[in-house]
Amino acid sequence: MQIAILIFEKLTALDAIGAYEVLRSVPGWEVRFVGPQAGLVRADSGSLGLVADDSIDQVTEPEIVLVSGGEGSRPLMNDERVLGWLRDVDRHTRWTTSVCTGSLVLGAAGLLDGKRATSHWLYLDRLREFGAEPTSERVVEDGKVITAAGVSSGIDMALHLVNRELGEEAAQAIQLAIEYDPEPPFDSGSPAKAPKEIVEAVARVAAAGDEWLGASTGSET
Amino acid sequence: MQIAILIFEKLTALDAIGAYEVLRSVPGWEVRFVGPQAGLVRADSGSLGLVADDSIDQVTEPEIVLVSGGEGSRPLMNDERVLGWLRDVDRHTRWTTSVCTGSLVLGAAGLLDGKRATSHWLYLDRLREFGAEPTSERVVEDGKVITAAGVSSGIDMALHLVNRELGEEAAQAIQLAIEYDPEPPFDSGSPAKAPKEIVEAVARVAAAGDEWLGASTGSET
Repeated sequence: MQIAILIFEKLTALDAIGAYEVLRSVPGWEVRFVGPQAGLVRADSGSLGLVADDSIDQVTEPEIVLVSGGEGSRPLMNDERVLGWLRDVDRHTRWTTSVCTGSLVLGAAGLLDGKRATSHWLYLDRLREFGAEPTSERVVEDGKVITAAGVSSGIDMALHLVNRELGEEAAQAIQLAIEYDPEPPFDSGSPAKAPKEIVEAVARVAAAGDEWLGASTGSET
Repeated sequence: MQIAILIFEKLTALDAIGAYEVLRSVPGWEVRFVGPQAGLVRADSGSLGLVADDSIDQVTEPEIVLVSGGEGSRPLMNDERVLGWLRDVDRHTRWTTSVCTGSLVLGAAGLLDGKRATSHWLYLDRLREFGAEPTSERVVEDGKVITAAGVSSGIDMALHLVNRELGEEAAQAIQLAIEYDPEPPFDSGSPAKAPKEIVEAVARVAAAGDEWLGASTGSET
């Protein structure tokens, strides 16, 4: 099984690496990090460099494709070369997947039309622009498309995917191997659970740095 | 606040990136990825390259140091240059931390003597060799040393650390920003929770690829 994880300038690194760590643990599964161009990309913080060993032109028939999210996913939504690649690989994939705002790139490629899908909670409504039905679940499977919520959800999505392909024991073994027994110190990981003032503060900070989101939240206030 | 995350050949990438994604989200906190040498390192899978922007010689007084784990942490336990660096930086840090088998490197540097500490569950007992008291909790704070359990636990550890430094609201905001509302499909993330046959299978596979662990589990059977 060949898995192509799309990375790019200003991605959110955990989007890709959470899922990667699960998928790379399956014997016989080969993960390739692919970029619009081969070579180094910097994550959104600026302090982390990741290497795309291949360009998208070099990986044409992965069985699984995963699109990462983050600030850098925005320009990809108008990048016809990347969108065309996604449409092409989707014709052959067993699973077409995303983490965080990677789903907006799948949407821009036309791959979410009529599908239930999710994204980072701040961007969930934007899925409608691509004919998708926003769904605030952590992992959403519709046909062969699996979308995941924000950032850390890639871990859950990848375990879900291993379970679907290889069954419960394989997924349980990997969960144990990466000791994924989460104990966040608080229960504020979703807008439905976090205190209202925290939700507002995070939305405000995000909007201040993001024109698209700024326009969106601005229209509500 | 300057944070040095030690990465190296054959690290387990999620050890570093889970914690990084939390810590880099704090305004004013600067994460530096440092290696024994500056430059590219390959993660344990072989399929991922990460860049250490600095060598350990270039980052001498971080307020927080974090040692990643994975197969590549083993040779570091005999690398006097790295161990000396850890002892040196520990004299100035506010927090000295590790994820997964990174705690064994802290132990080899003599920094866990007499302390409660944790590690990946498969390697927990090895902490005794360094005078530490193995503790099967997910995040263990003893003085200024914080150790975390296997791989994915770095996310929890980093949120704990943000809470300790900046309080509950900062930690909650970052948890929400990375949408850390975990929903693993199974409850098998620790040896206490996973089915016995899964625990045995994972231990067997790990031991087959790991001489140290092989010797350890071999002595029990």
